[in-house]
Amino acid sequence: MKINAELVEKTLVLFLREEIHKFGFQKGILGLSGGLDSAVVAYLAAKALGPENLLLLLLPYQSSDRNNLEDARDVVLRLKTPSYEIDVTPQIDAYFSANPTDDRLAFGNKIARERMSILFDFSQREKAMVLGTSNKTELLLGYGTWYGDMASSLNPLGDLYKTQVFQLAEALGVSEAVRAKAPSADLWPGQTDEGEMGLTYAEADKILYLLVDRRMTPEEVAEEGYPSSLVQKICAMVKRNQFKRQLPVIAKLSHRTVEKDFLYPRDWGV
Amino acid sequence: MKINAELVEKTLVLFLREEIHKFGFQKGILGLSGGLDSAVVAYLAAKALGPENLLLLLLPYQSSDRNNLEDARDVVLRLKTPSYEIDVTPQIDAYFSANPTDDRLAFGNKIARERMSILFDFSQREKAMVLGTSNKTELLLGYGTWYGDMASSLNPLGDLYKTQVFQLAEALGVSEAVRAKAPSADLWPGQTDEGEMGLTYAEADKILYLLVDRRMTPEEVAEEGYPSSLVQKICAMVKRNQFKRQLPVIAKLSHRTVEKDFLYPRDWGV
Repeated sequence: MKINAELVEKTLVLFLREEIHKFGFQKGILGLSGGLDSAVVAYLAAKALGPENLLLLLLPYQSSDRNNLEDARDVVLRLKTPSYEIDVTPQIDAYFSANPTDDRLAFGNKIARERMSILFDFSQREKAMVLGTSNKTELLLGYGTWYGDMASSLNPLGDLYKTQVFQLAEALGVSEAVRAKAPSADLWPGQTDEGEMGLTYAEADKILYLLVDRRMTPEEVAEEGYPSSLVQKICAMVKRNQFKRQLPVIAKLSHRTVEKDFLYPRDWGV
Repeated sequence: MKINAELVEKTLVLFLREEIHKFGFQKGILGLSGGLDSAVVAYLAAKALGPENLLLLLLPYQSSDRNNLEDARDVVLRLKTPSYEIDVTPQIDAYFSANPTDDRLAFGNKIARERMSILFDFSQREKAMVLGTSNKTELLLGYGTWYGDMASSLNPLGDLYKTQVFQLAEALGVSEAVRAKAPSADLWPGQTDEGEMGLTYAEADKILYLLVDRRMTPEEVAEEGYPSSLVQKICAMVKRNQFKRQLPVIAKLSHRTVEKDFLYPRDWGV
């Protein structure tokens, strides 16, 4: 679980620079929540592209934690990047006043998709690639909104567990305020990721590492001293959310089907 | 280009039924535009699931063509499915009044993503899988909004060229009104797909078939009698839009990376 933060930083800075430049883009864009993951991506992208080529969007909803907004503003000030603040409340409230729900998860998903939609709108306006912030823990557990925060053009953090993102954040000099707070999607007041999922990142990351990277069976992981029920729960989450890590399934009819046989690298046309 | 419509219908009806039922879902949901593709998917899904298990959402914007709305309502009446009409104008206008643009394509993309977001919201409310309507021509040419109308859970039409969707529509008994009108994403008044792209589906489909399914080179396709400039243009569109047929690129750091090495079928956990 321990990373060589210097090497990881170098690798990800190069990744961002090359993947953006080879498509003829100079700029990146991302949504800054005030949390750890988006701050780390912002630091990496500022190094990769130069702060003037990074656009940070702050996209609060009215119930969003004001401390998060303050922390996001602080990241902007430290990195000296251009930024916009766009309140998503009017359009979210317009929708839910016509289509009310008591389901706060549905509410959170709608907000996540609205933010994605705004990021891609500004991507087009500014000719900037949308940088994703989902880490490996979130991708494996399916803890994110499909076609919302999980949607981006490039994702520098997708192969780092949350625990590893913390290490990288420290090496990058991300502020103590951002690193010290409890991870939260901030979808409703008082929400924390760990509270909502009923597990801690420290435990989940170790169990996922043994299951996924070390290819251990659930039984073998439990023998390492982890509660069997927790291991089973994590296994079930990983499997249940496999659809979120895939493209829409296309019914195969021809000899050459998009996404099945018609497969080229993303930079095929470059 | 000629399909066995009866066999295709049977295959797609089974595809929809099995892919939905095996995940424990009974229902499907899709956005009905009044155009050909969504009408065909609605007819297929009504056969696969029973009309009572299909929810059709009509999601007009204020500038949407009223004839399309009428045609969509007619599909609902013919299929006898539940449906909702939700005007997307309030939330779209709330966004663009704060963030004005003259770019009508950006406007259209925002609407397409809003519709996706509403479909997934109702997917969660109704426990219904979101059915996509992108055909093979659109997928190959990249004629669609990434994370908008290109986003779904299942796509029954993705391996049929537009010309083939017309054949299937006729076999399914889709109304003449829907089949006869010029294909249009209806993103602004008077828009047609063919006008916007500067090509006809009849030509594009034949050229794509030779390039993709028959694996001919652009030179060989031109020798078949198609204008070389059109073949080159279509080739360039297919290549340029490869990113829309892929997941976000993750920077590889570990031995087992999501979407690269950690690969399981969608129904792995079923």
